[in-house]
Amino acid sequence: MTGRRELEERFDALKGANLSLDLTRGKPATEQLDLADALDGYLGGDFRAEDGTDARNYGGLRGLAEARELGARLLDVSAEEVIAGGNASLTLMFFVLDAAMNTGLTGSRWRDAEPVKALCPVPGYDRHFVLAQALGMELVTVPMTDTGPDMDVVEEQVATDSAVRSIWCVPKYSNPTGCIYSEDTVKRLAELPTRHVPPQPGGQPFLVLWDNAYTVHDFEFPPPRLTSILPLAKAAGTEDSIAMFASTSKITFAGGGVSFVGGGAGFLEAVEERLSILMVGPDKVNQLRHARYLAGDKLEQHMRAHAEIVKPKFDAVERGLARGLGGSGLARWTRPRGGYFVSLDTPTGLATTVVALARELGVALTPAGATFPYGDDPEDRNIRIAPTLATLDEVEAGIDVLTLCIKLAAARKADHG
Amino acid sequence: MTGRRELEERFDALKGANLSLDLTRGKPATEQLDLADALDGYLGGDFRAEDGTDARNYGGLRGLAEARELGARLLDVSAEEVIAGGNASLTLMFFVLDAAMNTGLTGSRWRDAEPVKALCPVPGYDRHFVLAQALGMELVTVPMTDTGPDMDVVEEQVATDSAVRSIWCVPKYSNPTGCIYSEDTVKRLAELPTRHVPPQPGGQPFLVLWDNAYTVHDFEFPPPRLTSILPLAKAAGTEDSIAMFASTSKITFAGGGVSFVGGGAGFLEAVEERLSILMVGPDKVNQLRHARYLAGDKLEQHMRAHAEIVKPKFDAVERGLARGLGGSGLARWTRPRGGYFVSLDTPTGLATTVVALARELGVALTPAGATFPYGDDPEDRNIRIAPTLATLDEVEAGIDVLTLCIKLAAARKADHG
Repeated sequence: MTGRRELEERFDALKGANLSLDLTRGKPATEQLDLADALDGYLGGDFRAEDGTDARNYGGLRGLAEARELGARLLDVSAEEVIAGGNASLTLMFFVLDAAMNTGLTGSRWRDAEPVKALCPVPGYDRHFVLAQALGMELVTVPMTDTGPDMDVVEEQVATDSAVRSIWCVPKYSNPTGCIYSEDTVKRLAELPTRHVPPQPGGQPFLVLWDNAYTVHDFEFPPPRLTSILPLAKAAGTEDSIAMFASTSKITFAGGGVSFVGGGAGFLEAVEERLSILMVGPDKVNQLRHARYLAGDKLEQHMRAHAEIVKPKFDAVERGLARGLGGSGLARWTRPRGGYFVSLDTPTGLATTVVALARELGVALTPAGATFPYGDDPEDRNIRIAPTLATLDEVEAGIDVLTLCIKLAAARKADHG
Repeated sequence: MTGRRELEERFDALKGANLSLDLTRGKPATEQLDLADALDGYLGGDFRAEDGTDARNYGGLRGLAEARELGARLLDVSAEEVIAGGNASLTLMFFVLDAAMNTGLTGSRWRDAEPVKALCPVPGYDRHFVLAQALGMELVTVPMTDTGPDMDVVEEQVATDSAVRSIWCVPKYSNPTGCIYSEDTVKRLAELPTRHVPPQPGGQPFLVLWDNAYTVHDFEFPPPRLTSILPLAKAAGTEDSIAMFASTSKITFAGGGVSFVGGGAGFLEAVEERLSILMVGPDKVNQLRHARYLAGDKLEQHMRAHAEIVKPKFDAVERGLARGLGGSGLARWTRPRGGYFVSLDTPTGLATTVVALARELGVALTPAGATFPYGDDPEDRNIRIAPTLATLDEVEAGIDVLTLCIKLAAARKADHG
């Protein structure tokens, strides 16, 4: 292992390099966005959907049939089990949770029996946590494993605390660990709502929040397959407690895509009723563009093109981490087969220091703690690495800085510890 | 005046005509939508906004600068006083009201001091009423006049009932009367929040909900001008209590356009904070299309083209109503200089009957009562006429049916009355 003096010297030398690298954001790179440029103008003046609907006019709360078909492929359900929405699945999550909390969705509103708690597998996605918190929910952490949330803990929580009304899930290439939920985990999540005793009769049911954001963001083909949750939920009678989400944001244009919400018939009817108060309908023109652009095998071709751009960056992360930290015992990290993130754990208590050191060298990392509720990682060790936006060279340089900073932080701590 | 027997004969004869006409919906006609077909593909591969932003990627909660510029023209404010959103201004209204009600926007949440009441000038827009009701507000009617809401009643309500927290306004070509709020009305509305005493200290301020949906939907050029409310609000110190909305829905593609929310700096900061929990950003690709497509004098050219299609239909409504009902004393109706609707009042107690009779003849009219809170017109006399979607011939035929049904309903009532 490298001595502290040498690490300090390398650190000081890099200070003069004036790096300016950003590994913070799960944003597509320009070359990825370029893949979808033909979307604008793709309709070629033909705005009629297959069923004759004029996509340019008002109406149709569930979205165009062919857009729902696209959503059905992402969510592994039938088109009848999908509503196609606007540009943001996060907004659909807000519509669902806000209604469940404040007016009731398929039952009476959650807030009538406070507190309301959401289970948050950690490390996880900060926007999920912030949304639940902003709506007045308490965030309860549960551990993530390589096969999904620790279901023993989850089931115990749901069965013993009626205030627990939902759980956040990113079932494939989870943000940030990249794990794929195992068949056993999916089955136990499908059955989870049966363990919940609502605090009041007719209470809004428990919701499994199933954000399948990275469902087709594979690095290898044929891709690994996530167990389909909705058939399991139907078998357990819980299909109206599964709130499924997906979008094309990281498929076509980030922010300019189409989002989807899926689930059981009763759940979707309640969602549609909610939507009816707040919109006349979604942007069907953009839905039609997307449905045609990604129809048939064009979706997989498109995702293969993404993989050709993205996978080398993840390979570079793995190579850099292995080269810099392999065998050191100073870090554990994930090796995702798809998605947008690598999750890295430093020794306890070092993540904040490492992120600060990297910033000194011009490398921006997601703030330590961001993957935990309230931004507080009690062990202060998780760091989320987002390599898509940067160039390959930048990723390589950034990871070298990261590994240096981890070793330096550990060496300094050892000296003072 | 025509005798009842002749009216009954004409009614029976028309039953065999198998009409199928729809005057219910404020939807643009196909020819209007055609005006914007070039939107799809208009970017020509150039996705860079003026400030260098890549419209295809995530981010920018306030929307692109050039989109805000477009919104500023619609709302008669500066670009800094606008956030450009997604496809639906109704959704922006939901975001604002839901936050005001349940979590607080620029003050503590409304629901902490119930009841919460919204003033609803009648006749008005049913979706406004339904939205407020769905969020748990009580709807209080106030009369509309030719110059806007009856401000004596409005001021009295606000000053004497602290539960009244908002008022719905469609200030130009009001839905459905088509009136334009007078300068005096606008000034009194700008000052209205100063009359409100919130039920608790630090309470969410009163909101003037200013839905300027038809701001550029003029039939004549140069168009009549609505007094600008925000400068008057600033003079009164109420600018953070003015929630302004507009969209391009009836300018380009209904449902595929761009929406806007405007107001004072503090209000917009609160809206942006709310948006930050529920989206990464709006569809900036569609914003860029719209900003370029309607830049400079292209907006007015575009609206002149709309007027050429729409105004003849409104002229046909006026001609048909005058021919069928002029001098009869059986109806009063409005003669809007823009917008999407004509409002007609039958004698008291006849609107439901008239709508039912017209349906018997194959002419669909907006359900009687739809322009009132809870769908209940206590006088049962208001009928909203929406002539844009139908062809000119259909409008003429539909209005002839309507006038016949009004005369027949009145004659039957006179016989039984």
